[in-house]
Amino acid sequence: MSERVPVELARAYRLMNHGPTVIVTSSHAGRSNIMSAAWSMPLDFDPPKVAVVIDKNTFTRGLIEASGAFALNIPSRELARLTVAVGNETGREVDKFAAHGIRTFTGTMVEAPLVEGCLGWLECRLIPEPHIQDTYDLFLGEVVAAWADPAVFDGAHWKMEEGGKRSIHYVAGGHFFEIGEAFDADAPPRR
Amino acid sequence: MSERVPVELARAYRLMNHGPTVIVTSSHAGRSNIMSAAWSMPLDFDPPKVAVVIDKNTFTRGLIEASGAFALNIPSRELARLTVAVGNETGREVDKFAAHGIRTFTGTMVEAPLVEGCLGWLECRLIPEPHIQDTYDLFLGEVVAAWADPAVFDGAHWKMEEGGKRSIHYVAGGHFFEIGEAFDADAPPRR
Repeated sequence: MSERVPVELARAYRLMNHGPTVIVTSSHAGRSNIMSAAWSMPLDFDPPKVAVVIDKNTFTRGLIEASGAFALNIPSRELARLTVAVGNETGREVDKFAAHGIRTFTGTMVEAPLVEGCLGWLECRLIPEPHIQDTYDLFLGEVVAAWADPAVFDGAHWKMEEGGKRSIHYVAGGHFFEIGEAFDADAPPRR
Repeated sequence: MSERVPVELARAYRLMNHGPTVIVTSSHAGRSNIMSAAWSMPLDFDPPKVAVVIDKNTFTRGLIEASGAFALNIPSRELARLTVAVGNETGREVDKFAAHGIRTFTGTMVEAPLVEGCLGWLECRLIPEPHIQDTYDLFLGEVVAAWADPAVFDGAHWKMEEGGKRSIHYVAGGHFFEIGEAFDADAPPRR
């Protein structure tokens, strides 16, 4: 089971601020789904809001629209293959949780399952904006609960260090970057 | 002067897909401005679109609304201090280009200046959506030209390697991550 601690809502944006690829989970009327999303970002600090692009042809989209909720899970490299796999399959045809043996746990504020082994989790209530959902596949949410693995996030700051788990940042075609060295902008450039 | 090559529009999303912090530039009626933005993402592939959060109190916002255009510049670690500085100052009170000796060059499709020394550049035309601009500070743009430094992006793929320039990913309080190791999701986890 993933260890996790609550993250103060006003600091929840820090889980996503550096641009990690996320896994989107959703649930409605006994059906759940999981997909990956490279296109997400924070939208506000407090109350925290997020934006995420959810394509029209996804099964996830119907679950989000019906339930009014979703969760964003922040995977590490250990979950990179899973992140690609759940982005290439559709929940209409396969129960991806069963197919991949994905373990989940239950959040506190929304029904969407949270994926074990992630670095952080944001439980979100959909902010309905039908025009931009329909026109741009753009979905907005208010973060109503947030969690992190205390091994990598101390409640205020990331502590992803050499040898530990790190967030992953998708490019295209199965290629990712891992996040790299932390630095302070007051420090002189290394090179 | 930065070396740069054009990036095919259908591949322009790859410059932003991994979640780098960007610098937003804008220009209208002889006034230009520059600010940083941690909150941006791709929104579509082809034609490529982007989304970026531009706060109400920024000078940039008026320039974008008046000109109907902006540019996203992708800085490397060498520009991290500048990225923080232009995020903390307002163009209403200071000409940030003069104050920091920022060198720029001219794009082909929009008036916004492009910042020398960046890894990539996206010239964008505003897609006017007044409701989400007013309610969420959320601005959408169509990418109408894109450029990259051929030392780091070969037109289709990033080649940010050890010792070379890398994109930067802001967290909070002057703290960044540099992007790290590239990997393929088919490869087994390193740890």
